[in-house]
Amino acid sequence: MKRTKKAVVLLSGGLDSATALYVVKAAGYKTYCLSFDYGQRHCKELRQARRIARASDSPWSMVRFRMPWKGSALLDRAQALPSQTTNRVIPSTYVPARNIIFLSFAAAYAEVIPAEAIVIGANEIDYSGYPDCRKEFLTAFQTALQRGTKRGVEGRAVAILAPLVRKSKSQIIKTAVRLRVPLELTWSCYRGGKSPCGRCDSCRLRREGFREAKLLDPAL
Amino acid sequence: MKRTKKAVVLLSGGLDSATALYVVKAAGYKTYCLSFDYGQRHCKELRQARRIARASDSPWSMVRFRMPWKGSALLDRAQALPSQTTNRVIPSTYVPARNIIFLSFAAAYAEVIPAEAIVIGANEIDYSGYPDCRKEFLTAFQTALQRGTKRGVEGRAVAILAPLVRKSKSQIIKTAVRLRVPLELTWSCYRGGKSPCGRCDSCRLRREGFREAKLLDPAL
Repeated sequence: MKRTKKAVVLLSGGLDSATALYVVKAAGYKTYCLSFDYGQRHCKELRQARRIARASDSPWSMVRFRMPWKGSALLDRAQALPSQTTNRVIPSTYVPARNIIFLSFAAAYAEVIPAEAIVIGANEIDYSGYPDCRKEFLTAFQTALQRGTKRGVEGRAVAILAPLVRKSKSQIIKTAVRLRVPLELTWSCYRGGKSPCGRCDSCRLRREGFREAKLLDPAL
Repeated sequence: MKRTKKAVVLLSGGLDSATALYVVKAAGYKTYCLSFDYGQRHCKELRQARRIARASDSPWSMVRFRMPWKGSALLDRAQALPSQTTNRVIPSTYVPARNIIFLSFAAAYAEVIPAEAIVIGANEIDYSGYPDCRKEFLTAFQTALQRGTKRGVEGRAVAILAPLVRKSKSQIIKTAVRLRVPLELTWSCYRGGKSPCGRCDSCRLRREGFREAKLLDPAL
């Protein structure tokens, strides 16, 4: 397949972003993966992100930054990780403005390559506690990029693609299997042990997704 | 003055952001300054930003990051700095998505403090070549923050204040003098020498502004 359209893919190393990567690859995009070292509790997901990028034959870049303030259980080792969250409240693992920051760097990268699209594995069904994972936020952010970037004012604004935003975890898993996403390389656990802890919110959602999809998790 | 409202101020060390800081101080905000080390050509403006924050009695924080791609004369030492730019074209000193990235970090900081406002010295009159300095971009970005942050969905979204956005350079300078901004501490030059080069776009705009305001530049 000749790939002329380019997409910057936010790749965390988890199941959703890896699936989003393969969805846009299947749609014919040449993909450029972008990951972040922002002081998360462990670097396991970053290592996996690099491996997934390589498996998908995509260049991989990393942006490193530190925020001099705390405010999330995912960054602050003194805070306990939650093990039961409903999607009615914003969980303590919410990192203030994280996706906003990630999308901003992706927009910068997309201006430089230049790329037609930014891809994010955001999902508002299972994780709707995070306000920056919702479609209505992504639409507003795309408008900001239309008005605030060089390509935007030239009428060639980048599109934000969130192919999983309305899918359930089990639908995402079925899509991933169909597109041959290397699920064995994806890492969802909030902790960075040798194998997933099985108890954190993220492990629980993943397990329930595989159970509902009636599939075995190849990462276990 | 008892200050109960908080504002995160993007402070570059230049004339505009320092003036914006003093404008919101005068409006009664408790100010928190935020600067960025993003690989700019010189660190002189960062040192001046810290001094201006101290002079204004504001806490000062710095976020450090590197973008693994090039794309701007301000970051890429191999590119020559322009010395004549009209505001009809986007100049080579445009750093892709820079204000978008800065505002995203400010939004994170504002969530944590928490602050009611983010302040940016953006100005679309003298510098309209930068798309992310325009009012219509800032409005769109504020909408994105309303939808994508915890405080936003709780109905207490941060406001983006750009008190200088429609002012000319000479109006900004007059405002600065009236509010006793420590102009002698501000640094505008794209180069990081002992004294301003006097030839780059930024030096030229500043000189013309002081001339029009019929004032002497205390930084010279």
